[in-house]
Amino acid sequence: MKNKRIVIIGGSAAGPKAAARARRLDESAEITIFQKAPDLSMASCGYPYYVGGFFDDRNKLLCTPTGVVRDPKYYLNAKGIDAKVNTEVTRIDRKNMLVEFKDLTTGETGIQPYDKLIIATGSTPKMPPIPGIDLEGITPLQSMQNADYLRKIRDDKSIKKAVVIGGGLIGIETTEALNLAGIELTLIELLPQLLTFLDWKMAKLVENYLKTKANVITKNGVAEFIGENGKLKAVKLANGTEIPCELAVVAIGVTPRVDLAREAGLDIGELGGLAVNDYMQTSDKDIYAVGDCIEVTNKITGKKVLAPYGDLANLEGRVAGENVILNDVATFKGTIQTGICKIFDYGVGITGLSEAIAEKEGLDYIKVVNASPDKPGFMNGKLLITKLVAEKQTGRILGAQVIGPGDVSKQIAIWATAIMGKLTVDDLANNDLPYAPPFSLAIDHSIATAHIMQNKMRGLFDGISALEVKEKLDKNERLYLLDTRGPDEYEQTRLGAGETLIPIGQLRTRIQELPDDKSTPIVTYCKISLRGYEASRVLKAHGYTNVKVMEGGIMGWPFEKEK
Amino acid sequence: MKNKRIVIIGGSAAGPKAAARARRLDESAEITIFQKAPDLSMASCGYPYYVGGFFDDRNKLLCTPTGVVRDPKYYLNAKGIDAKVNTEVTRIDRKNMLVEFKDLTTGETGIQPYDKLIIATGSTPKMPPIPGIDLEGITPLQSMQNADYLRKIRDDKSIKKAVVIGGGLIGIETTEALNLAGIELTLIELLPQLLTFLDWKMAKLVENYLKTKANVITKNGVAEFIGENGKLKAVKLANGTEIPCELAVVAIGVTPRVDLAREAGLDIGELGGLAVNDYMQTSDKDIYAVGDCIEVTNKITGKKVLAPYGDLANLEGRVAGENVILNDVATFKGTIQTGICKIFDYGVGITGLSEAIAEKEGLDYIKVVNASPDKPGFMNGKLLITKLVAEKQTGRILGAQVIGPGDVSKQIAIWATAIMGKLTVDDLANNDLPYAPPFSLAIDHSIATAHIMQNKMRGLFDGISALEVKEKLDKNERLYLLDTRGPDEYEQTRLGAGETLIPIGQLRTRIQELPDDKSTPIVTYCKISLRGYEASRVLKAHGYTNVKVMEGGIMGWPFEKEK
Repeated sequence: MKNKRIVIIGGSAAGPKAAARARRLDESAEITIFQKAPDLSMASCGYPYYVGGFFDDRNKLLCTPTGVVRDPKYYLNAKGIDAKVNTEVTRIDRKNMLVEFKDLTTGETGIQPYDKLIIATGSTPKMPPIPGIDLEGITPLQSMQNADYLRKIRDDKSIKKAVVIGGGLIGIETTEALNLAGIELTLIELLPQLLTFLDWKMAKLVENYLKTKANVITKNGVAEFIGENGKLKAVKLANGTEIPCELAVVAIGVTPRVDLAREAGLDIGELGGLAVNDYMQTSDKDIYAVGDCIEVTNKITGKKVLAPYGDLANLEGRVAGENVILNDVATFKGTIQTGICKIFDYGVGITGLSEAIAEKEGLDYIKVVNASPDKPGFMNGKLLITKLVAEKQTGRILGAQVIGPGDVSKQIAIWATAIMGKLTVDDLANNDLPYAPPFSLAIDHSIATAHIMQNKMRGLFDGISALEVKEKLDKNERLYLLDTRGPDEYEQTRLGAGETLIPIGQLRTRIQELPDDKSTPIVTYCKISLRGYEASRVLKAHGYTNVKVMEGGIMGWPFEKEK
Repeated sequence: MKNKRIVIIGGSAAGPKAAARARRLDESAEITIFQKAPDLSMASCGYPYYVGGFFDDRNKLLCTPTGVVRDPKYYLNAKGIDAKVNTEVTRIDRKNMLVEFKDLTTGETGIQPYDKLIIATGSTPKMPPIPGIDLEGITPLQSMQNADYLRKIRDDKSIKKAVVIGGGLIGIETTEALNLAGIELTLIELLPQLLTFLDWKMAKLVENYLKTKANVITKNGVAEFIGENGKLKAVKLANGTEIPCELAVVAIGVTPRVDLAREAGLDIGELGGLAVNDYMQTSDKDIYAVGDCIEVTNKITGKKVLAPYGDLANLEGRVAGENVILNDVATFKGTIQTGICKIFDYGVGITGLSEAIAEKEGLDYIKVVNASPDKPGFMNGKLLITKLVAEKQTGRILGAQVIGPGDVSKQIAIWATAIMGKLTVDDLANNDLPYAPPFSLAIDHSIATAHIMQNKMRGLFDGISALEVKEKLDKNERLYLLDTRGPDEYEQTRLGAGETLIPIGQLRTRIQELPDDKSTPIVTYCKISLRGYEASRVLKAHGYTNVKVMEGGIMGWPFEKEK
């Protein structure tokens, strides 16, 4: 039997994973990777940490866990894979089942026949088509070259001021990286909030934190890059503000790179990514596609989405690598769009649907916010704020957003696994998680969140969001705000929105101080709203009919406070 | 309507949780907690960390997150709950629905009628009935008083040598605590391994690590405590060894405290714990029981187990607190016996069934070991070793053990949620977990473990455990051991068991160096056995018919090595 010829276009994440999987399943296959860039298997999600100085050895982005750089020699010797770097595939010839390529170093061209082809061409960073975009000092952070460029700026200490354009994951990570490089930073976001995958309030809380580290401008785009002698010297915003800077990192998203595929007549989806089925197979049965260049299914909504994440690239690559050898046995059924990023000492994560998306999809949902620590105080527990979205009738978990200095990663991992398993709030409420004080509270933050949601679903907990409270205050609606914390806590920080302070321990004996009219709209809260919840139960028992608990308490309040 | 009288016996974890839940559901209920000890709501799982000096303020074990000590005054004012400390319930009178109690300070007695009673009497530490057990210097670590006693020893620097008897969770945590107090420690375990909920090899790896911090003696019990002037001066082991010591902490487990319940004629289970249904209801419909004193259902095997864990106590308490008010609406369906502990810089966790239990239960299972880092090398990733047990036919996850310096807690949380949701290896193989380099590898350790298990279930990966390899070596069975690491790694550490070193990058060109007989039993491995796996695929492609990969590689080898 003739050896199978597997050709892979793209050598970053998904491509090499597919190649390695194919090799393990078929030692005799002839496997070729074409990589336009000079490097292979770059840990591209690590670029911001290289730029930020978390480590200094560039090779760490390119090597195996035991320190061997994944270059063509490594691929040949360790994996029996022919990896051609600096080599661009210029055309896919489906009829003759071959690709045409060009060596970018020598200019030589050639052809490579395939039995199965895997397209892993990745994505291109979006660059805004505005004046000055070609000035020196404007760059994305998407390639190893971009990382090298920014790292050199760090090492040379050559610039003082920079802007980052775009408040998504990469923009935020780059903001941290350049801040750690000692550069004065301004982050600019066109939309009214950073991290648009989060709901507004959660994003606002993150923004409040980020502002302690860098300048942040929202609701304002860049109108022009202003230069001098071909070099960037400022950016001009849509509102006319000019921000002096010698560097601008553009991080406004990526576009699937599908030119080759489109020219070859393969189906492209509505979002601009290559269309594939669960086998990662394109509209040509012998051609597969994986990584940033494809559209994948959102497993909750069933709709196609772009999900250019390094972890999914690997999972998709593994599936394609198996299917080109064993003929369509493995499937990748989609994503729930889990994401996480580190912002200095803060973690920000999401899995599943935000409230905004759930609403847009017309789902009948219920949501709750829980602010509480990840560990006991005596083990230096740190705050976590979780917003949970569930299906109203069934309690099925639809999505969770978690932010804060606490262990966000574990929380998101729990919710992601729960969503993948179609679990409900009730399942999570009695989840048997690992407990010891160095790792969690006796009632884990995720379980406490499920408990509050249970109470809310059963009408025991009438919640109101900080946003709704703020709107009522702004409209001067009648509202009795009851802060149930202690006087010392009140001295430290408080809303200053006309609230009354009655510590929970005095509430039962001071109940007569509350409005006589039992239908008065009352909102109770404390630091995180556990005491606020207890107060609401007391007031209801005393006949008050319109009592709500402000979810997340003071810790979840994203607006200005008196102190 | 008359106010409901709720009486709770026990004020540690489960009791107060039940009381608080009942209060939130019924503001008018008359709720009384009887607590024999002087303190309430102690964070008893925190005792080892108080003793170890992680924090100095004893009140932190007793206070709310905002620093208010949970004493009777707090319970009365903040929760409207009458908590009687230093008060022992001496009898449950089911016929008249009341409890008899005695104030241990004044000696006064009284009765308290109940409509619903909750028993949360906890457990008693087992003490071995051997000579010298009453000497001064012998203590368990179960009560606040025990913690105070050991903390005083730390603060006074009054002793130099101690033994800890029992290598379970508490014994291990106490070993760390006393070591951090500057005391020379010997840990003594009667059985052949520590942490008997782990499989032997995993426990052995933990033991190897622990031995870098303390003396560890296994397969040896204490025969006698030797004293002088009423004070402990040594322990004598079963084999005659005498170990000088001034302190012995006994941590050989706990017994459910069910005397009151037994005298009242309530059903006791076969394991000695109170029998309850999923509503936490005893054989008397008006009496509930929660916490360490009950037996609960193992959700995987369906069998009753003792599960004296603080997190379960809280979940059970919440369910009972709800049911005494709303009449049996909430359920706690059982445990999967998830547990975790910290041992210096090492985490040790388990959820679900170990291989030993799966075998004992007669389940048709398959297992795999994965050793790999939790994060990328450039973000200082640390090793995790996972042993996964799944149902052979369906791939349903049955259990996972995770140890190592890496983030054990997140891994166990993922597996626990997967088991609670009855998920399979295939579900976990494409789990959409949060990925960014500060938090995980692109392919999370749990996903990599699922991938290896998939390969094993499909016959692509023929694994062999380190234990089986050792047995074959000890029996001098014919075995060709192939180490596929690099020469530098080989110089650093190696088995020295007659292995041949051929780095994976040279294997294809040096294949003729392998035995001519293609049926030779060959075991391949590397540091963690990824290269070992690749080598096995190469060898099989070259016609070798009896090739296995040593799971976990060198990192998973629990025995002596040449270097």
